Amino acid sequence: MTAANMGPAIILVEPQMGENIGAAARAMLNFGLTDLRLVAPRDGWPNERAVAMAASADSVIENTRVFSTTQEAIADLQHVYAATARPRDMIKHVATPKGAATELRSFFTANEECGILFGKESSGLSSDDVTLADTIITVPLNPDFTSINLAQAVLIVGYEWFLSADTTPEVVLRNEERPATKEELGHLFARIERELDATGYFENMMPRKPVILKNMRNMFQRFGLMESDIRAFQGIIKGISMKKRDRSNNTD
Amino acid sequence: MTAANMGPAIILVEPQMGENIGAAARAMLNFGLTDLRLVAPRDGWPNERAVAMAASADSVIENTRVFSTTQEAIADLQHVYAATARPRDMIKHVATPKGAATELRSFFTANEECGILFGKESSGLSSDDVTLADTIITVPLNPDFTSINLAQAVLIVGYEWFLSADTTPEVVLRNEERPATKEELGHLFARIERELDATGYFENMMPRKPVILKNMRNMFQRFGLMESDIRAFQGIIKGISMKKRDRSNNTD
Repeated sequence: MTAANMGPAIILVEPQMGENIGAAARAMLNFGLTDLRLVAPRDGWPNERAVAMAASADSVIENTRVFSTTQEAIADLQHVYAATARPRDMIKHVATPKGAATELRSFFTANEECGILFGKESSGLSSDDVTLADTIITVPLNPDFTSINLAQAVLIVGYEWFLSADTTPEVVLRNEERPATKEELGHLFARIERELDATGYFENMMPRKPVILKNMRNMFQRFGLMESDIRAFQGIIKGISMKKRDRSNNTD
Repeated sequence: MTAANMGPAIILVEPQMGENIGAAARAMLNFGLTDLRLVAPRDGWPNERAVAMAASADSVIENTRVFSTTQEAIADLQHVYAATARPRDMIKHVATPKGAATELRSFFTANEECGILFGKESSGLSSDDVTLADTIITVPLNPDFTSINLAQAVLIVGYEWFLSADTTPEVVLRNEERPATKEELGHLFARIERELDATGYFENMMPRKPVILKNMRNMFQRFGLMESDIRAFQGIIKGISMKKRDRSNNTD
């Protein structure tokens, strides 16, 4: 089916609250996941509360499939992950959400079907369900507060899935225009120097003038000015210098 | 205050629903954040619904501070981030949650106070609030479904903050024991070969025996067997070979 081709299936095993199913559906769609499967949901299916909470992620809810057992829910899958805390009694690969996302993206690219199991709100996945998985996903959490909501666990796993194909630069200057050229910067510096000369600012400290100008240049260099910033500064300087002249006209 | 030293402050500007404040407090504590600040919460403060939703993250709720304006809430901070979609009308640095977390961790290490603004549920941060921030944090989202819950935005930013100091390996084999030695593997191969010889498995295909054994060795090598796996296989082979002999005794 098309839905399964968007990314790994999210399989909620015995989910208890419809609200959490709806919130999980939203979290999935936030990150482009659409294949939601439920194993024996406590309150049956469809669930009005799930629909209400899912809001505009209703497409995910409408395509949700329900199974009686975890085995049936994962029968068509080739790689199964289980979101749970690290088990003490099993030898299993344990991945972070990021590590799992990298693997899932590789499988996805190879057209291999994947899914991720999430346990019920009260007690998580049973040991038998974890055994069905190839790899465990454990979200790194504050060891003093490891209780994480079902939909929030889905959110983090979905987020890392999305990031594994996302190319947004980590930090970028938002701009639809261009950084200032060095010539524009030079004009700005020259303008400031002219205006300061005009007000007599340097009169009693001529020996320090070169140092002051150098510091000012360094400061403006550091700002990473855009072309529009240069215009803004030119305007400010023009405004301030006009006022100075008016005032000197009035008081001299 | 001590709380502020745990990491950046989370500042909810005009939050509307107590449930979301409580869920944000939980998300914060999941990732070790404790400094929650509210600007003009719609339903006042304290808020019973926030307390109920926060559950065992009540320490965060108890230490929450309320301010009248965003300016007051950020007065003591040196670096302020705003969680919002990319604005079209401002020149600002825009970071991913991961990029912002890297910066925040650097500031934190340098004992510089940081905070992150989150807007109200209905309409997010105002343009004036975004202007107060040095950098925008934009969560990468499915462009067809960018509506993300307040507490879930806090969760993702908190998650990346936590990861920025987390050293969990991306994928690791969960084990409290050791991988098998090559000698142990060698014994296992030898045992399998002996048992296959004993049943006459190779009788009619002696020329292919070396290839079959080589393929089997390659397969077992690929499994990455642990010491206990070797013992498990030895037990399985012992069990199966006993049965074979019983059967041959019965039928021959």
